[in-house]
Amino acid sequence: MKNNFEFKNPTQLIFGKGTIAQLAKELPKNEKILVTYGGGSVKQNGVYEQVCHALKGFNYVEFWGIEPNPTVETLRKAIDLGKRENITYILAVGGGSVIDGTKLISSAIPYDGDAWELVLKPSKIGKMIPFASVITLPATGSEMNCGAVISNAEKQEKYAFYSSYPQFSILDPATTFSLPDFQIACGIADTFIHVLEQYLTVTEESALMDRWSEGIMQTLIELAPQIKTNKTNYEAMAEFMLCATMALNGFTAMGVTEDWATHLIGHEITALHGITHGQTLVIVILGTMKVMKEQKKEKILQFGARVFHISEGTEEQRMDKTIAACEQFFRSIGLATKLSELNIGKETITTIKERFIKRNTRLGERGNIDGNVTEEILIACL
Amino acid sequence: MKNNFEFKNPTQLIFGKGTIAQLAKELPKNEKILVTYGGGSVKQNGVYEQVCHALKGFNYVEFWGIEPNPTVETLRKAIDLGKRENITYILAVGGGSVIDGTKLISSAIPYDGDAWELVLKPSKIGKMIPFASVITLPATGSEMNCGAVISNAEKQEKYAFYSSYPQFSILDPATTFSLPDFQIACGIADTFIHVLEQYLTVTEESALMDRWSEGIMQTLIELAPQIKTNKTNYEAMAEFMLCATMALNGFTAMGVTEDWATHLIGHEITALHGITHGQTLVIVILGTMKVMKEQKKEKILQFGARVFHISEGTEEQRMDKTIAACEQFFRSIGLATKLSELNIGKETITTIKERFIKRNTRLGERGNIDGNVTEEILIACL
Repeated sequence: MKNNFEFKNPTQLIFGKGTIAQLAKELPKNEKILVTYGGGSVKQNGVYEQVCHALKGFNYVEFWGIEPNPTVETLRKAIDLGKRENITYILAVGGGSVIDGTKLISSAIPYDGDAWELVLKPSKIGKMIPFASVITLPATGSEMNCGAVISNAEKQEKYAFYSSYPQFSILDPATTFSLPDFQIACGIADTFIHVLEQYLTVTEESALMDRWSEGIMQTLIELAPQIKTNKTNYEAMAEFMLCATMALNGFTAMGVTEDWATHLIGHEITALHGITHGQTLVIVILGTMKVMKEQKKEKILQFGARVFHISEGTEEQRMDKTIAACEQFFRSIGLATKLSELNIGKETITTIKERFIKRNTRLGERGNIDGNVTEEILIACL
Repeated sequence: MKNNFEFKNPTQLIFGKGTIAQLAKELPKNEKILVTYGGGSVKQNGVYEQVCHALKGFNYVEFWGIEPNPTVETLRKAIDLGKRENITYILAVGGGSVIDGTKLISSAIPYDGDAWELVLKPSKIGKMIPFASVITLPATGSEMNCGAVISNAEKQEKYAFYSSYPQFSILDPATTFSLPDFQIACGIADTFIHVLEQYLTVTEESALMDRWSEGIMQTLIELAPQIKTNKTNYEAMAEFMLCATMALNGFTAMGVTEDWATHLIGHEITALHGITHGQTLVIVILGTMKVMKEQKKEKILQFGARVFHISEGTEEQRMDKTIAACEQFFRSIGLATKLSELNIGKETITTIKERFIKRNTRLGERGNIDGNVTEEILIACL
């Protein structure tokens, strides 16, 4: 452990079967609550009914329609509703996108200007409305962190945004049983790659954080085939849900150098083509590993040895085997691993390169991934 | 993951070199602060000077003399001082005992009766004075949990006590450089056995929690010889400090069945003979593993395989090898592993057995360790 760090995560987790009913006990009384929802899948899987039952006697209004990769255009409507109704508390019910969107709503209701200004200039964030969540899709970790990703449909842009932590989050693994296979696969990939962004940088910063990161990845590799066989396996889905939360709540990030190049490149692909976040990450991480192989050498070798048990061959061969094993894992859960499979080609690569050059973007743990290196990475993803 | 659970840990960690100076920024202004200390080692290692420097301009009084295994007799004096001075905030500076004692002080200043009543009847705890800590001895995890262990010298008793979490804790690994070798060894053992108490129960409750527990133990096994060679190795001591905090802050306990028999039996040995906590645990855990071998079989086998790489032999042989490897690890850090080495014999065993029978004690993950099984365990520790 070399580096100084600070850590605090105040979110209360309420985890397990039947826990949505605890909303009745956990939500503060005498508040005017805004309940935010996605597109309506919670009406099919019983979650909406459970939430309504728990909210009996509370004073609340509903906002429907926060979409995957939530846009400021949609969120402005929720913010207007919140201002009109003098909302003092928010409950997000849905996947990571609903919680992400709610984080912007929480900061923008007390703000006088336009919400997109807060995304571009976080220093403008002042008072925030407290909020809680009921998470129904394990993936983003938004239920136990202060981060969000907000899109601007008009500008085709997508940026990270930081506000506050949920006061509490309810995680009932049974709510995930009705998720489409593709969403589950993207959630597994998102979780795995959240870990890699915090792990695949430099060695010997923290032996314990390395072990904990490897522990999440080993667990996901064990779980994935069980979930593929039976996605209503409660214990496996519960373990996956726990992994997703633990992968991006700071527990594996103490004193370690982080990367996040893959996420920021992936966001561009989503912003331009609407591809699901986890799917973009899978493709980009493989290109990042290939192009940044020398810089990440020690950590790729450790990753291969400890997570995929790769011990034979030269360093070069072991790194290649590790990248191949990683690709094989993503294919085994049913995801594409190349841009060409999604019909994305050189034109998009050029657009992203030019955006990064224009913004003077510098990504990665050493800040040395600029527009040109991003182009190299994306070409390696074709 | 089978079991429902709730988790919340609001303590802020401020970790690293030179962080004591941050007290000036983190402590609340306009409070009357009680600063609690141990026996005075902080005057030799520079910690006291750094704290005084940071506290310039704050309104505070000092209380000195919280001993290892803090007694209610000593704490009553601090509580009286706190009441007299109308204390509104407490800063604990020292090892786990100072923080443990401070937790009782925090609850007892606003309480009208005697502090020992709060230890015996936690339901009597009402208002608590908020507190923070500067921890100088990695071991108990008290800097990031709400637990404490309080002794009653007059009655020769020692009980667990639960109040609130430190608002923040400052961990500067450089403060540990002057610790005696024996204290460091006991801290490593205490950390290792905190993990075992949460891990060595039943299998297949949480794959991730298992990995994280194993990760702490693997890290400690790697660190111990580095620390033995050079206890002023900053990076090794920092990693150990992180492990100690992470071993008892709930991060490895989500949804898992816990044991704690070893701790509760160990507390009796400390209460009767004043033996250092970590040293008692080392001896008792080996006896617990031997006597409870059948009940803990699956987990002992997993522990052996993953932490000590034991894969050869029958189940019986692998369990014996695992217990032997564990004993060997404790001996390698310089601790005794048998009661007889400390000149403790049958008389003490009988006293503890009788106490447990009188109290109708039932310990362990299945509540089946009564006075008689405790006697068996302690005989196995001779």
